[in-house]
Amino acid sequence: MLSSDPVSTAGIVVIGNEVLSGKVEEENARYLTQGLRSLGVALMRVVFIRDEIDIIAKDVREMSEAYTHVFTSGGVGSTHDDLTFDAIAAAFGVGLEIHPELDRALQAHYGERYDQATRRMALLPEGTELLGMGELRYPVIKVRNVFVLPGVPSFLKLKFDYLRPRLRSTPFALKQVFVSVGEDRIALLLKDVAEAHPELEFGSYPRFDDADHRVKITIESKDPSRVEAGLAALLGQLPTDWVVRVE
Amino acid sequence: MLSSDPVSTAGIVVIGNEVLSGKVEEENARYLTQGLRSLGVALMRVVFIRDEIDIIAKDVREMSEAYTHVFTSGGVGSTHDDLTFDAIAAAFGVGLEIHPELDRALQAHYGERYDQATRRMALLPEGTELLGMGELRYPVIKVRNVFVLPGVPSFLKLKFDYLRPRLRSTPFALKQVFVSVGEDRIALLLKDVAEAHPELEFGSYPRFDDADHRVKITIESKDPSRVEAGLAALLGQLPTDWVVRVE
Repeated sequence: MLSSDPVSTAGIVVIGNEVLSGKVEEENARYLTQGLRSLGVALMRVVFIRDEIDIIAKDVREMSEAYTHVFTSGGVGSTHDDLTFDAIAAAFGVGLEIHPELDRALQAHYGERYDQATRRMALLPEGTELLGMGELRYPVIKVRNVFVLPGVPSFLKLKFDYLRPRLRSTPFALKQVFVSVGEDRIALLLKDVAEAHPELEFGSYPRFDDADHRVKITIESKDPSRVEAGLAALLGQLPTDWVVRVE
Repeated sequence: MLSSDPVSTAGIVVIGNEVLSGKVEEENARYLTQGLRSLGVALMRVVFIRDEIDIIAKDVREMSEAYTHVFTSGGVGSTHDDLTFDAIAAAFGVGLEIHPELDRALQAHYGERYDQATRRMALLPEGTELLGMGELRYPVIKVRNVFVLPGVPSFLKLKFDYLRPRLRSTPFALKQVFVSVGEDRIALLLKDVAEAHPELEFGSYPRFDDADHRVKITIESKDPSRVEAGLAALLGQLPTDWVVRVE
């Protein structure tokens, strides 16, 4: 299983009632999912949760302990429903303190409108790091292994793209076998092959439309030679006339 | 807060490594989110998780205890990575047993190809109910308050649409106020109004594009007259020239 390999792993916490009530089309988790995949980071879990401190704190704490990286999206503005920093402080049992560098940057941006509400945005969990200060218009805020990203998709993308070089891991190797028969016909032989190759991840994805195949079998690992060996083992078991193509 | 009202609530568990690895565009959670909203069901949490029994069991158990309804998507086919039923049985500490009615239906469908692998699909947690037998091609499988839906989007939609009449609850009432100033300008007054109306849910959604407004404020509850009262209180605090429109 990927999860037991010494690979870089990640979890995503999407924060905001508006996502759960369908008021906005959520696109941040999708962007991060594709991005992490392309960087070779194994995404283990995504949660969409409400704007409540206890809930955010629990999910962040659990993911922070379990995975290499955690990404949060949302809840970092100046209004009463922006609770992400309070929750992350609670998750790690630390206090909040005005971060002097961010405080100065926000003061410069807001000028005379820099007040009690906006200054909350500089009130960060103790131990927070700022990444990209001076390079990005607003820095990426990192607390331990948690990257605290904004909910506005264009801002999230800018920040994640800035982080890419430091997240890069060994890429995934993937082979796909497209077969002409239904899942029920391949289930037992696929189970045998998967059990003989516990170091690989085998997936089986049926289709019920008029595509040229009925099931796509995927074989995946970070070691390309193991994937090739698994592919050979699978093709050795599949009747040749069931195989539409291999990619 | 909505969460403390005696309303119908729900959680969604999307099961499958293929979603987390970005191999498929996930659309089931989105469909269920919009559907639940339109039915007046408050969606409290969505998780996307890997094909692992312990993980699935834990999320299902926690959501089953916390919410009125739980919807799972994926992991119900005949292959080795289809673990949802095993996990739900584990979640509730019950065994799996061949469900006679589903067994007969699958036997009729598969004929001589009905074997050990396909018969796994009739091996359901003790206490499972089948809904829509005879009306739907395949029934909806329900274990306690968990609706076990397939991962294939067209099948999931058919089954969820069948369930709509039995899920319907009091609709949400929503008012939206579009304002011409940034979140920092409204944060303090919005906080005061929200604190004075704890029975309502206030949201604040900034925009950074060239829309006609910079923030959308939402006011929500299941009681339309309370929403109207909250709207009046908010409009009483907002300078008139900040209000672009109310919907």
